[in-house]
Amino acid sequence: MDSENIKSTAHAMADAARAAVLPFFRADGLTADNKAGQGFDPVTEGDRAAERAMRSVLAERRPQDAILGEEFGHTEGSSGLTWVLDPIDGTRAFLSGAPTWGVLIAASNEDGPVFGLIDQPYIGERFEGGLGEARMQGPQGARALRVLGDRPIADSILFTTFPEVGSLEEGAGFRAVSDQVRLTRYGMDCYAYALLAAGQIDLVIEAGLNAYDIQAPIAVIEAAGGIVTDWRGEPAHRGGRVVAAAGQAQHAAALEVLSKVT
Amino acid sequence: MDSENIKSTAHAMADAARAAVLPFFRADGLTADNKAGQGFDPVTEGDRAAERAMRSVLAERRPQDAILGEEFGHTEGSSGLTWVLDPIDGTRAFLSGAPTWGVLIAASNEDGPVFGLIDQPYIGERFEGGLGEARMQGPQGARALRVLGDRPIADSILFTTFPEVGSLEEGAGFRAVSDQVRLTRYGMDCYAYALLAAGQIDLVIEAGLNAYDIQAPIAVIEAAGGIVTDWRGEPAHRGGRVVAAAGQAQHAAALEVLSKVT
Repeated sequence: MDSENIKSTAHAMADAARAAVLPFFRADGLTADNKAGQGFDPVTEGDRAAERAMRSVLAERRPQDAILGEEFGHTEGSSGLTWVLDPIDGTRAFLSGAPTWGVLIAASNEDGPVFGLIDQPYIGERFEGGLGEARMQGPQGARALRVLGDRPIADSILFTTFPEVGSLEEGAGFRAVSDQVRLTRYGMDCYAYALLAAGQIDLVIEAGLNAYDIQAPIAVIEAAGGIVTDWRGEPAHRGGRVVAAAGQAQHAAALEVLSKVT
Repeated sequence: MDSENIKSTAHAMADAARAAVLPFFRADGLTADNKAGQGFDPVTEGDRAAERAMRSVLAERRPQDAILGEEFGHTEGSSGLTWVLDPIDGTRAFLSGAPTWGVLIAASNEDGPVFGLIDQPYIGERFEGGLGEARMQGPQGARALRVLGDRPIADSILFTTFPEVGSLEEGAGFRAVSDQVRLTRYGMDCYAYALLAAGQIDLVIEAGLNAYDIQAPIAVIEAAGGIVTDWRGEPAHRGGRVVAAAGQAQHAAALEVLSKVT
């Protein structure tokens, strides 16, 4: 596999997405369409601009690869490699001006992601993992990514995005884990996965994810020594219910509870 | 009042706090003492280093002023001005590696803050308000701070730090407001007040605050045209239950509910 080309293409895509999306962040009069028809599922011009920018890079550099993007769907390819893209993971954070959204880029085959990148354009932080890499670059320079490793569940820090997590049953499962940890925090979207890969937190538990929400985080976290599965311990790259852990101990303790959720 | 000296001193303090605290952020092996004796109330070396650095600046530049700091308590002064300092607001965010904590600096008289500054050292963002200023500086440069202004409560974005908010009664009051808004987000600590001043969100509702948690946000938000009171519409600079609003409409709608909380 052409690893160096995949990695440099991913960085070129992230650079292009940064330039495309930043003019929309905290812009006056940013409007949100309602994609879901009910509730609040904003899709901004920023989302679309960022995905367009990433697709342009791929069209020029790797036209043989397939693409699965949140905004513009599936594009066929012939190489066996699919780029799985979420131009703004955390659109609600984006619309609120919070710097905890990210651009997610994964290069995947049918078994899941082989390389992933989580980019936070406003802070200027980039986390990458796979194909021999596990590192971040940010305002304080570059450093290696390495998860915390095993810690007792009672000492653990748990993150999720929404306190309700998912369905009533899923929410109850989440809270049963939350009751065992030292600290639970909310509202970080993909940034929580980056913090786990960076050795800052122990667990991220979410439900109702799409493939493009989780493939980049899987690659980054696994490269940093962490574990990402669904709530039964099976592969999570198709989305759904996800638990990411900094060690076997935290993962086993969370699955003990979550695997019983119907 | 020596406005220019107060403002330049506040910036010098924020610069000193940044330099003192950043080596501790995301450092390996950061430990948290337990200040509360129960629960989880971490005080890190970073907190103490940042407050010490700010007190050193004051000792040199304005020894006649009083100081009220979270970590080292009250220091008498003779000028009538008190510096109200929270070296790390959002210690839990800090310990989790999330960039949503901040250094809070307020210059206050007995009626409340006359100038305030919210600094996020990792991102390199600084929000200031009072004594003729209402502006922010960050990765994308400088811009004026201006709140959103009046919006219907149904269109509003509401932030708080912890989903439980405070006591059971306080939590119920919060949720009664949350049920009326478009979007509720959690986990931002003082960063939520900065977002409100920057015209990104409509409401921040919290309970159980200390004076040093809220005096800097009050100065920044009021300078940007917003409103900060307690849950009965009275001054909030002594802490307790706080509601910050981007306009009279959102403030009135929130107080309608919150003023009934016993």
